[in-house]
Amino acid sequence: MASIFTKIINGEIPSYKIAEDENYYAFLDINPNSAGHTLCIPKEEVDKIFDLSEETYMGLMRFSRKVAIAIEKAIPCQRVGMTVIGLEVPHTHVHLIPLHNMQSMNFANKEKLTPGAFEEIAEKIRAKL
Amino acid sequence: MASIFTKIINGEIPSYKIAEDENYYAFLDINPNSAGHTLCIPKEEVDKIFDLSEETYMGLMRFSRKVAIAIEKAIPCQRVGMTVIGLEVPHTHVHLIPLHNMQSMNFANKEKLTPGAFEEIAEKIRAKL
Repeated sequence: MASIFTKIINGEIPSYKIAEDENYYAFLDINPNSAGHTLCIPKEEVDKIFDLSEETYMGLMRFSRKVAIAIEKAIPCQRVGMTVIGLEVPHTHVHLIPLHNMQSMNFANKEKLTPGAFEEIAEKIRAKL
Repeated sequence: MASIFTKIINGEIPSYKIAEDENYYAFLDINPNSAGHTLCIPKEEVDKIFDLSEETYMGLMRFSRKVAIAIEKAIPCQRVGMTVIGLEVPHTHVHLIPLHNMQSMNFANKEKLTPGAFEEIAEKIRAKL
C-alpha cells in the first residue's frame, strides 16, 4: 500500500509544496516543531534512509541542502536543524527544522498554524529557492 | 581558538575513534543518547552545516552514511537516526544514534558507559567498516 507520503507526492493528499524535481519532493510538516518545519523525501518509497542506494541518498542530501538554505533565508531562526528518525512513517524523510533553541528539536513540542499561515510560510520559502 | 572537536582531531583530547580520512573524522559521543552514538565531523572547522561548501557537505554525508551502515551492523537497534543541531559546539557535527524508540532521540536521556564499554563498542563498529 502506498505510504501517506507517496499519496502526497501523487496529489491524493494535499500538501504545502516547497520544491519538487524528478526524484525528490519537499513540503511543510503539518504538525511542525516550529513554523517552517519542512520534510524532504525521495519519491522512491524506502523505509530506512541507510537502505537507500548511495546515489538516491546523496541526491536526497543535495536536495535537502538547497531547501534548508532557502528556509534559513526565509524564516528568522538561529539555524536550520536536520534530522532523520523515521519510526512513524515507513518512507524516508528528512526533517528540516528552524531552530530557536534546543526545544525546537523536541518532537513533543508542536506549533499550531492556520492554513493561511502555512500558505504564507510556503510562499516565503519558495521565493528563496 | 580551536574547537573541542579540532582538539580531538589533533589528538590533544583523546577520543574513541571510529573512522578517519583526509577530510572527516568519526568518534563516539562520550555523553551518548544510546550506546554506539557517534559523531561525524569535517576537519574543516565551520559552525553551521549549511555554511559548508556543497562539496564538503556532500563528502560529510557520504562519510556519515558509511559509518551509519557500520553502526547498524554492529549495534542491535531498530535503525540508526541522524541529526544535526549544533547549538552547543560551533563545529559542524552529525549525530548518528542507534534508535530503540523515540526516547533515543531525546538529548535529555543519556546512557552511562565505562571506558571499557566505550572501547568495546568502538571496536565492534570499526570491525564492520
